Amino acid sequence: MEIPEAKTIKDAAKRIASYIHRTPVLTSASINAILQTNIYFKCENFQKVGAFKYRGATNAVQQLSESQLQFGVATHSSGNHAQALALAAKIKNINAYIVMPENAPKSKKDAVIGYGANVIECAPTLEARESTTEKVLQDKNAYFIHPYNDYNIIAGQATCALELFDEVPNLDFLLSPVGGGGLLSGSALAAYYFSPNTKTIGTEPSGADDAFRSLQEGKIIPSTTPKTIADGLLTSLGSKTFPIIQQHVKEILTVEESSIIEAMKLIWQRMKIVIEPSAAVPLAAVMQNQNLFTGKNVGIILSGGNVDLNKLPF
Amino acid sequence: MEIPEAKTIKDAAKRIASYIHRTPVLTSASINAILQTNIYFKCENFQKVGAFKYRGATNAVQQLSESQLQFGVATHSSGNHAQALALAAKIKNINAYIVMPENAPKSKKDAVIGYGANVIECAPTLEARESTTEKVLQDKNAYFIHPYNDYNIIAGQATCALELFDEVPNLDFLLSPVGGGGLLSGSALAAYYFSPNTKTIGTEPSGADDAFRSLQEGKIIPSTTPKTIADGLLTSLGSKTFPIIQQHVKEILTVEESSIIEAMKLIWQRMKIVIEPSAAVPLAAVMQNQNLFTGKNVGIILSGGNVDLNKLPF
Repeated sequence: MEIPEAKTIKDAAKRIASYIHRTPVLTSASINAILQTNIYFKCENFQKVGAFKYRGATNAVQQLSESQLQFGVATHSSGNHAQALALAAKIKNINAYIVMPENAPKSKKDAVIGYGANVIECAPTLEARESTTEKVLQDKNAYFIHPYNDYNIIAGQATCALELFDEVPNLDFLLSPVGGGGLLSGSALAAYYFSPNTKTIGTEPSGADDAFRSLQEGKIIPSTTPKTIADGLLTSLGSKTFPIIQQHVKEILTVEESSIIEAMKLIWQRMKIVIEPSAAVPLAAVMQNQNLFTGKNVGIILSGGNVDLNKLPF
Repeated sequence: MEIPEAKTIKDAAKRIASYIHRTPVLTSASINAILQTNIYFKCENFQKVGAFKYRGATNAVQQLSESQLQFGVATHSSGNHAQALALAAKIKNINAYIVMPENAPKSKKDAVIGYGANVIECAPTLEARESTTEKVLQDKNAYFIHPYNDYNIIAGQATCALELFDEVPNLDFLLSPVGGGGLLSGSALAAYYFSPNTKTIGTEPSGADDAFRSLQEGKIIPSTTPKTIADGLLTSLGSKTFPIIQQHVKEILTVEESSIIEAMKLIWQRMKIVIEPSAAVPLAAVMQNQNLFTGKNVGIILSGGNVDLNKLPF
């Protein structure tokens, strides 16, 4: 497989259209007034399973052949990809095996189990995660679907920006958070093909700035000891996401934790919508770099809304 | 003035249309599955100033004559009516004087001041509130606009249910929270005129069940020592709202505090939207009376989304 082309992304959009929500694009007069800019929020917090991840998972699962499908799918994830793959598999009526660290919140495990998937617990280390997944793949003969380092996943995530460009044709900037890079690489490809005057910018917590440093150094710098409230952005870039980001993303802006919390609160208060900390990172970047965005049309992907209400930062 | 007729409510809807948001009606497959019912949420948390109150305030202010407008408007409120009247006055380019108890949260005072209104502080008693308002009215010659006991306010609040009936024609029930009764009386009138097969039910915290008792005893029982997290529902019914409720509302359901918090959390978690505790009261009533609503089409007015994020009950 190759880097998704324009047609690949359009095909993905058609393939998943009946399974996903076409999420709304919201604006906030008061946030625009405060920041002196025109922000268009693409609300993937309203997506099924509460995050954009359902786009990629659906695009991947729907393309599997009968023989690939027969033993089910598997992944390792403690986050939104776990729920996304669980639901995508349920829709296709196949088994899903989700490897999760044993210290993952019970609410997340319950959500995955609620979609009918099997949760396999492992020790909370990358090594245990990978070896446990390897064992599951061998035992169950299941088909592995990576959370982001997979062109079908990237093409699925790209459909989000595609919808946004459909609705808002004159964006100067598109801001996306970056963790493993599935959403950012997909968004950058969509901008390149469908909205070439839009500049895609990655946004990242300074406490987990591996993508920023990777872009600077020209090679993947692993995320070793990330420290941020944005728990969806802890992972390292992948061999498939990084080259796309290198080619199509000119800049990654890093933001402070206090800005993330402030941005999250601003969105909750002014827009009356629930977003998770990772989704607040792009607005935090606008807040920290107002000179860059004054008077501009800025697209922001609100990546998800899955937050533990018992552990809010305010 | 008389009890609003069908035409009065239709006229109010036309009058305020360009000033308000036509708020979305949302559904949640997961909440419907949990409660075995079909709920249509009318999202007034997305209304301007974050609550339905802006409908009534706009309808009232927009009808004032030049002579009534010239010295501005006044009210006493520590809640959403304060912000609603402040913004309605700002739009009309007139002064607004809002009497607020001195212990009202700073964030609420700031919001009112942010809309350009004058805040006049008073001691936190009903007596001080009324005497201070009286003094403001005399000093400033301003026009008094009551938070709910006013037919223009009632007709304005009725436009919310009118929009909901427009969009969902087959509702078996319409559930509204009840405090002073502006929203409930308006909703019941709208159902009577425009959706006569829909039964309007009031919902109220059991810790502030004065409307429930008023309906039972056939006279207004004042709300003396209300105790509930639903801080928008502390007031007593009025001489104009009560007779309408007596005539058109067959039932008021009371709910426990724990149900209110559970309902609020369910909406935040599943729908990814921010609502205030008062807005969760109708869903709490469905949760506590599932037998009544199984398989039915239920309209719920999510009355507002103004909540102090630093004082959440979870």
